Amino acid sequence: MGLRAGNRRALARALSRAESQNPRDRAWLDDFWKEVGVVEPAALRVAITGPPGAGKSTLIGRLGLLELEAGHRVAVLPIDPSSRKTGGSLLADKTRMEALSRQKAAFVRPSAAGKMLGGLALHTLESIELCELAGYDRIFVETVGVGQSEVDAALVADVVLLVVSPGAGDELQALKRGINEACDLVVVNKADGDALASSRLLVGDFESAGSLYSGSSPDVLMVSAKDGTGVSALSEWLTRWQSARDPAARTQLRRHQRRAFFERLLATLVVDAIARGEFPEELDALLDDVDSGRVRAPSAAQAVVDRLFAKS
Amino acid sequence: MGLRAGNRRALARALSRAESQNPRDRAWLDDFWKEVGVVEPAALRVAITGPPGAGKSTLIGRLGLLELEAGHRVAVLPIDPSSRKTGGSLLADKTRMEALSRQKAAFVRPSAAGKMLGGLALHTLESIELCELAGYDRIFVETVGVGQSEVDAALVADVVLLVVSPGAGDELQALKRGINEACDLVVVNKADGDALASSRLLVGDFESAGSLYSGSSPDVLMVSAKDGTGVSALSEWLTRWQSARDPAARTQLRRHQRRAFFERLLATLVVDAIARGEFPEELDALLDDVDSGRVRAPSAAQAVVDRLFAKS
Repeated sequence: MGLRAGNRRALARALSRAESQNPRDRAWLDDFWKEVGVVEPAALRVAITGPPGAGKSTLIGRLGLLELEAGHRVAVLPIDPSSRKTGGSLLADKTRMEALSRQKAAFVRPSAAGKMLGGLALHTLESIELCELAGYDRIFVETVGVGQSEVDAALVADVVLLVVSPGAGDELQALKRGINEACDLVVVNKADGDALASSRLLVGDFESAGSLYSGSSPDVLMVSAKDGTGVSALSEWLTRWQSARDPAARTQLRRHQRRAFFERLLATLVVDAIARGEFPEELDALLDDVDSGRVRAPSAAQAVVDRLFAKS
Repeated sequence: MGLRAGNRRALARALSRAESQNPRDRAWLDDFWKEVGVVEPAALRVAITGPPGAGKSTLIGRLGLLELEAGHRVAVLPIDPSSRKTGGSLLADKTRMEALSRQKAAFVRPSAAGKMLGGLALHTLESIELCELAGYDRIFVETVGVGQSEVDAALVADVVLLVVSPGAGDELQALKRGINEACDLVVVNKADGDALASSRLLVGDFESAGSLYSGSSPDVLMVSAKDGTGVSALSEWLTRWQSARDPAARTQLRRHQRRAFFERLLATLVVDAIARGEFPEELDALLDDVDSGRVRAPSAAQAVVDRLFAKS
């Protein structure tokens, strides 16, 4: 039974190939997609982003169980920003979603970001597409970040949720400034016990920050991932959001995202190639002139761009 | 009388050409540098960076006057990060250095960053080189930034000063984390009146943050640009720093910086070209496949990199 029939092991193998640096895995995937052809959007792709410690994993664990009860198949792709991913920290992510990951209709796949595109990994868009192809219709991508991570997440998601919690202190100012069209919903988590009052203040803060910085308020919901309060309201918000979307607009969005993700990925690879000094030999003399100061950077850089982007 | 003889108007004209987007100005500069040939390092290049409101301009105004008294010729290049530079804000920068800019041996040239390399402008390295060629032996580059700006400033300067002031609040945490080898000296400014006690705390904070995050403490000086306290100690610090440097190491550093600045500039131009969709026509079919989803981003991006960096 293959990936498209929902075989978990086949999906896991394909995801490993997407994460791999091995050209043979890349070739396998290219053949695979050629066979699959163009796929129409089938899943709701939800990005969950926010600062470390906001309780994103616990929230996804709770929300995922509710989504399963509502009949959805749930895939979760947590992206860990640490450059050296240990087995231990991958396990810690999974622990917070333990009940969810034991369910048959759920699939949890943490991965290291490795070389990054903002809060995303190079393989993130393809991993989402593979999960979608395997029949998961609620895909949660978890990214860690402050300020810009919503913008990055919007490259791969239909809807972007920013999760915050009271007491994040220093980082909230940056977050409030980061509220923009890329963020569809702010979720104030850990609204329980002693933190209930400060959570209410935070909701007000974000509502007014939204109108202050972008002229419009994003929706703000208050939840407690720990005791479950507000999580069903969040699930309903997602359903409402999905039914309000025009399918044609979604197809258009995906097309736009594929190109935007490609451009980000290409820019990353090119910057890497430049930093590694992987220039064509014909540029050797020019680079020597840059080092010695005989040619200035602006002229030299323009010459290289003209060479790289030359119409042939 | 030309630029190399110290003619201010000739220098101002050359700087305008360096800031210009006009290819004719670029060509003029290329010819000019060809005639000049390779120049040995003659000036101390000092980057002054830090968050907005730390008092960098006022400090440079004071410090510059002291450097003039010590017999130096002083050039100041403040880079304004705002994308739309108004005459008004350029004037505001100059006001804080009014006494300095009235001096014959001083040259103050604010510029808009425009398209940015971190806290630097595309033309910054060349502007510094032009000032050096015109005989200025103390060149202050003022950049605004939090966290990463020291790293960027190190691309063009011999020595990097981070200026902070008490009460910067939220941003200090990020700054302390940003303390690294790129920063040679932390200057705690506004250490006067009521802020004296909090300035002392800040000095201690930065001393311990230095050892916490990088294993070694950068020097920390406490000054008041307003009343002048500590500014002569800062001037002496620069002189000591300069005489401790090996001239051969400085020549080597400049060589390294020219290449590093070129790579940053090239990466910026390439990313721009990608975002504008300036791909060679032969890639049209590939881009269509990216948009439709027939080819995935990782394969497409690698194909473009191979094409761009192909040995010919």
